[in-house]
Amino acid sequence: MSVSSKQKIANAVAMQASGYSLEQIFYKDEDIYQAELDHFFLKHWIFAGHSCQIPEIGNYLTLNFDSESIIVVRSDDGEIKAHVNICRHRGSRLCLDDSGNAKRFTCPYHAWSYRLNGDLAAARNMPDDFDYAKNGLHSVKLETIGGLIFINLSANPPSLSAIRDDLGEILSHLGVDRLSLAQQKRYVIPANWKLALENYQECYHCAPSHQEFAKIHAMARAPEDYARLKTEYWAKHPNNIKFQQFNRYFGLAEVGQEGYQYDRNPLLSNKLSGRKNGNAIAPLIGQLDSYDGGASELMIGPFSFFLIYDDHVLAYRFLPISKDQSICDVFWFVDENAQSGRDYDLEQLTWLWDVTTQADKTIIQNNQKGVDSRFYKSGRLSEMETFQQSFLDWYLTLLALSAE
Amino acid sequence: MSVSSKQKIANAVAMQASGYSLEQIFYKDEDIYQAELDHFFLKHWIFAGHSCQIPEIGNYLTLNFDSESIIVVRSDDGEIKAHVNICRHRGSRLCLDDSGNAKRFTCPYHAWSYRLNGDLAAARNMPDDFDYAKNGLHSVKLETIGGLIFINLSANPPSLSAIRDDLGEILSHLGVDRLSLAQQKRYVIPANWKLALENYQECYHCAPSHQEFAKIHAMARAPEDYARLKTEYWAKHPNNIKFQQFNRYFGLAEVGQEGYQYDRNPLLSNKLSGRKNGNAIAPLIGQLDSYDGGASELMIGPFSFFLIYDDHVLAYRFLPISKDQSICDVFWFVDENAQSGRDYDLEQLTWLWDVTTQADKTIIQNNQKGVDSRFYKSGRLSEMETFQQSFLDWYLTLLALSAE
Amino acid sequence: MSVSSKQKIANAVAMQASGYSLEQIFYKDEDIYQAELDHFFLKHWIFAGHSCQIPEIGNYLTLNFDSESIIVVRSDDGEIKAHVNICRHRGSRLCLDDSGNAKRFTCPYHAWSYRLNGDLAAARNMPDDFDYAKNGLHSVKLETIGGLIFINLSANPPSLSAIRDDLGEILSHLGVDRLSLAQQKRYVIPANWKLALENYQECYHCAPSHQEFAKIHAMARAPEDYARLKTEYWAKHPNNIKFQQFNRYFGLAEVGQEGYQYDRNPLLSNKLSGRKNGNAIAPLIGQLDSYDGGASELMIGPFSFFLIYDDHVLAYRFLPISKDQSICDVFWFVDENAQSGRDYDLEQLTWLWDVTTQADKTIIQNNQKGVDSRFYKSGRLSEMETFQQSFLDWYLTLLALSAE
Repeated sequence: MSVSSKQKIANAVAMQASGYSLEQIFYKDEDIYQAELDHFFLKHWIFAGHSCQIPEIGNYLTLNFDSESIIVVRSDDGEIKAHVNICRHRGSRLCLDDSGNAKRFTCPYHAWSYRLNGDLAAARNMPDDFDYAKNGLHSVKLETIGGLIFINLSANPPSLSAIRDDLGEILSHLGVDRLSLAQQKRYVIPANWKLALENYQECYHCAPSHQEFAKIHAMARAPEDYARLKTEYWAKHPNNIKFQQFNRYFGLAEVGQEGYQYDRNPLLSNKLSGRKNGNAIAPLIGQLDSYDGGASELMIGPFSFFLIYDDHVLAYRFLPISKDQSICDVFWFVDENAQSGRDYDLEQLTWLWDVTTQADKTIIQNNQKGVDSRFYKSGRLSEMETFQQSFLDWYLTLLALSAE
Repeated sequence: MSVSSKQKIANAVAMQASGYSLEQIFYKDEDIYQAELDHFFLKHWIFAGHSCQIPEIGNYLTLNFDSESIIVVRSDDGEIKAHVNICRHRGSRLCLDDSGNAKRFTCPYHAWSYRLNGDLAAARNMPDDFDYAKNGLHSVKLETIGGLIFINLSANPPSLSAIRDDLGEILSHLGVDRLSLAQQKRYVIPANWKLALENYQECYHCAPSHQEFAKIHAMARAPEDYARLKTEYWAKHPNNIKFQQFNRYFGLAEVGQEGYQYDRNPLLSNKLSGRKNGNAIAPLIGQLDSYDGGASELMIGPFSFFLIYDDHVLAYRFLPISKDQSICDVFWFVDENAQSGRDYDLEQLTWLWDVTTQADKTIIQNNQKGVDSRFYKSGRLSEMETFQQSFLDWYLTLLALSAE
Repeated sequence: MSVSSKQKIANAVAMQASGYSLEQIFYKDEDIYQAELDHFFLKHWIFAGHSCQIPEIGNYLTLNFDSESIIVVRSDDGEIKAHVNICRHRGSRLCLDDSGNAKRFTCPYHAWSYRLNGDLAAARNMPDDFDYAKNGLHSVKLETIGGLIFINLSANPPSLSAIRDDLGEILSHLGVDRLSLAQQKRYVIPANWKLALENYQECYHCAPSHQEFAKIHAMARAPEDYARLKTEYWAKHPNNIKFQQFNRYFGLAEVGQEGYQYDRNPLLSNKLSGRKNGNAIAPLIGQLDSYDGGASELMIGPFSFFLIYDDHVLAYRFLPISKDQSICDVFWFVDENAQSGRDYDLEQLTWLWDVTTQADKTIIQNNQKGVDSRFYKSGRLSEMETFQQSFLDWYLTLLALSAE
C-alpha cells in the first residue's frame, strides 16, 4: 500500500471515537477494504464447513469470497486438505461446483490434472524442463476442531491450541464432531461486511426487529431482565460441562492465539429449542439426555459463529464480496444419525434463522444506505452493544497496525 | 478536494469554449461530479413536493438522490419540516417509504424514536451521559412558496425573497397554492444529470423529437415564427397578471438570491391545454375564468421547473443518482377540488409529458453514449439553445469558484 | 498518461517472464487497459464486416466497442466509407441500429443531417459564422481486401499492401469477395479481451474442451500427430493455390505493415466441412470444384480471424467492452448465390462454432475468475501455445513502447 494510503488509514483510526459507530470512511474506502482483506480475511481462521460434509475420500467443497476460491477436500490418506482453487497453468478455476466428489481435479480448460493432495499429476505437451514438483496447487492451512473445519490463507496463522484446550471437552460433550448437515444457505447482503458482522454481534436490535427470535431467546430482553434470567438459569445447572464461559474474543485473545468465545444463554420459559413454538425439533445431540432450556454461543475467529441448541447447531460465516457487498452463509446441523422427515422437519428446523437472517439482510442494507450519506455521523452505542464495541476496538487496533 | 483535483477542474473550465457543448470531462470526471454535489445540489434549493401532498400532521414524503435521503413532514405544530433520513444511532435509514403517515419516526433497526419535529424521543439502554438534545435528526432548511415546498441542504442557502416578491401574486392568481397531486412518476435516465437538464432547457429538439408537443406548443417552431406568435399572443392579453416576465435565472440572479424565471408562452392556434388534441382537460385553476391559449413557464432554483397550463400544472425535478445516472421526477397537479374520473381523465392528463419524458430519456441516453467516445468534441450551439447556454456559463463560473 | 502510470506499465512488462501466462496486472489494471485502447484498438485494423452486407447505396452497419461506435456505409458514389457515429452538434449517437438503409444520417436529437459521405447537409438555426465544412462527421480510415471491410481509427494506420500482395490471389480463388452473410452473432464474455483472444490462439484446450471440434479438425490432436497429418495432407495437393503459408503475424510483420497469417490445415479423415458429421454443408465457394479435406486459417490484424472451409467462411472479431468484459463477434458466410433452406440448413451451418464459442465463453470466464485471485501466479505455457506466445511477446513489446 502507498504511503499516502497508510497515512489516510492511520488518520481515520486516530479520528475514530471509541463507544461510537464507525465513521463513514471505514465502510466506503477501497484502500481500507484492501487492508481488511490482507490483515483480517487473509490472516484469521475462517470456518469452511464440517467434516461430515466430506466424509469420503474425494469429497470436496469450495469456499468463495472476494476474488478467492478455496477447495477443501478429503484427500487419499483420509485427511482433509485445502488448496487454492486455481490451475497453475493459466489460472483457470479448477472446481466449478460448490461441492462434489473427485478422483482428481482436472482443469476444465487444458486438462491439467491434480491429485487430491494438490500434486500435479498430468500436464500434456510441456517443455522438457517443466518441473511438476513446483506446479502443485497452492496449499492452504487447514485445521479441524471437533469436526469443524477452519482454513487460513496466511503462512503464519494464529494458533488454535487455546481453543482446543478450553473447548475440546465441551464440544465433544455437545457432539459437535458428530453432526450431519441438514441445510446450507447463502445470503448476499448489499452492504459492507462490517455492517453485517456488527449486526450479528449485538442483540439491541432483537426486540424491535426479530419478534420470532424474541419469543424464544432471553437475550432479546433488556439487560437487567436478561441478567436475572441468566443467573437463574445457571443456578439450576451446577457442574454441567455445558455451563462454562470463555471470553477470549478480539482483544482478549492471548498473543499468538486465535480469538474465541463460549457462553451458554437461557431461552425463555418453557422454550427448548430454536423453533416457532420453542418446542424440541430434532434428536438431542452429543451426550445430552435432556433439554435444559438454553443454548450455547460459540465464536471461533472473528468471522465464524455457532449457536448450539440442545438438538441442532447453527453456523454463521461472514465474508466480503466487495467493499459494498457481503455474504452471510448459514449452516443447519443435526445429530449425525438424524434423518430429515423421520427425525425432524427441515422447514421447521430452518424457519427461525431463515426469517431472522432475511430480516437482518434488510436491516443491514438500510444501515448501509444511511452510512453512505454525507450527513451520517458516527453515533453513540448503547449498553447492549458492548460485544460489538469489543470488535470495533480490536478492529481499529489491527487496522492501525496494518498502516504502520 | 485535493489540490491536483482542483487544478484539473480549473483547467477544464479554462479550456471550455462558450457557445459550445461541454467537453467530455464535465460529464465523466468523478471529482467534477463530487464538486457538483457540494456546490450545486447541496447549496441550491430543490423542489420537494407540494404542501397538498402532506396535508395532515404526520404526513410525510421522502426525497432521494445520490446517497442522500430527506424526510419532509407536516410536524405537530402544522408546519412542514425537513430532516435528514438517518437515525443518529448507527445511521440506518429511518423512513423506508416514499410517503406515508407517522406519529413518530421509529428506526427499523434499534427502535430509536423521533418526534415529527426531529427531536429524539426515545432510545433504550443508553449510557447515563447520553444527551438526547444533541441527538435529534439533522435538520434541513425548508421553505414554501405558494404551496411549493423547497429544501436546501446548506447552512446558508440563497434567499428566496426575490422570488416571493416577484412571483407571490402571480402564483396566487394561478392557484399554485391550491392544487392536488394527480400523479408523480420517476424517470431514471442512464446519463449525467447535466445532459438531462440541458435537454429540458432547449426546444431546438422539440420539432424533430417531440411531435406530440410540437402539435400543441408554439415553442417548437423556428425562432422567428415563435417570436411572432408570442408577440401576437401577448398583445391579446394586456394587463393580465399572468403576463409578466422575470429573467433572474442563473447568472442573472441578484447576489445572495436564488435564481428563477417566469414567462408565459403561446400554445398553437385553438389549443387550450397540454393534451392530445389540445382541448381543455381539467377544471380551470386558481382565479382563472377562461383559457387564453397559453401556458406559463416557471423555474425556481437550477433543478426545478414548472409548466402551468390553465387547467393543470406540471413540475419537473432533475437530480443525480451518480455521475452516470440521473433522475427526472415529474408531478402532475390539478385544482385542489378536481377529482380523477369526474373532473379529468388521468390518462389524458399525463399522456403528453409521459410520452415526451420517455422520448427524452432515450435521447439523453444516446447523447451520453456519444459524449463517452474518445472522438467526441464539444460542438457549436444553435440560436435555439440560448437558455441552455446561460446555464452552462453559470455552471462553469460556479464550478471554477469551487476549484479556487 | 501520467509518468507514474507509464512507470508502472514499464515495470510490469520488465517483470513479465516470456513463455509464461501474463501476470495479473495485465488483466486488471485500468491504466493498462486504456493504453491497450490507444495503442492496439485505435492503431490496428479491425474487421468491420463484408461488403456483401451493404450492397446498395445507403446500406450501413455499425461497429461498437468500448465507448466507440463506427458507421460503415455504402456512400453515394458506391464506395464504402466509415464515420464516427457521433453528431457534431452535441455528440448524440447518430445511427441507433446495428444495420439499415439511409439516404442521409439525421440525428435523432436535433435533426442535424449528414450525407452518406459524412458531409453536414443541414443544421437549423445556426449562427451566421457556423462553418458546415468543418462540421462533417469524423472520418475513419477504411479499406477492403477481397470483400472484407477493415476500419482503422488512427491517422497513420499500418499498410495493408503486403496482405494484398500475398493473399489477393488466394482470397479471390476462394471467392472471399463473393460471399453472402448467413448469420452474425455477438458473444459477450465477462473477461478481459486478452483472455478471449488467447483462447482463440491456441488449440491446447481443443481436445479437452471442444469435443465437437475435435471430431472434425486435426488441429486438436497432439503436436506430433497433427504434424504428420498436415504433412500427408499437403503432400496430396501439390501446386494448389490454397496451399501456401504466410507467417507475418505479430512480431513477424514487416515494419509499417499490418500483421497477418495464412495457412491451410487438415480436417480429420473423411471430414469435408465444419458440420456435426463433417459432411458438406453448402455449395462450394469461389473457384473450388471439390472438397479437399482441409480448411484455411486467416488472420488480418491482431483481432480478426477467418476460418475458410471449402463451402463456408467463418469470421471472428475480438473487441473490448471494458477492462473486464469483451466481445466475440462471429459471422457465418456462404457463397453469394447460396440460399438458406434451399442450398444449406442454417442451424447445421452455425452449430459447430456456436457450441464451441459458447463453451469458450464459459472457459474464458473461469480463467478470469482464477486470474483475479491474489494467489494467481503466471504459469508455464505448453508447446501447443506457441502462437499465443507470439501474441504475448508482441503485445508486451508494444505495450512497453506505449509507456516510453
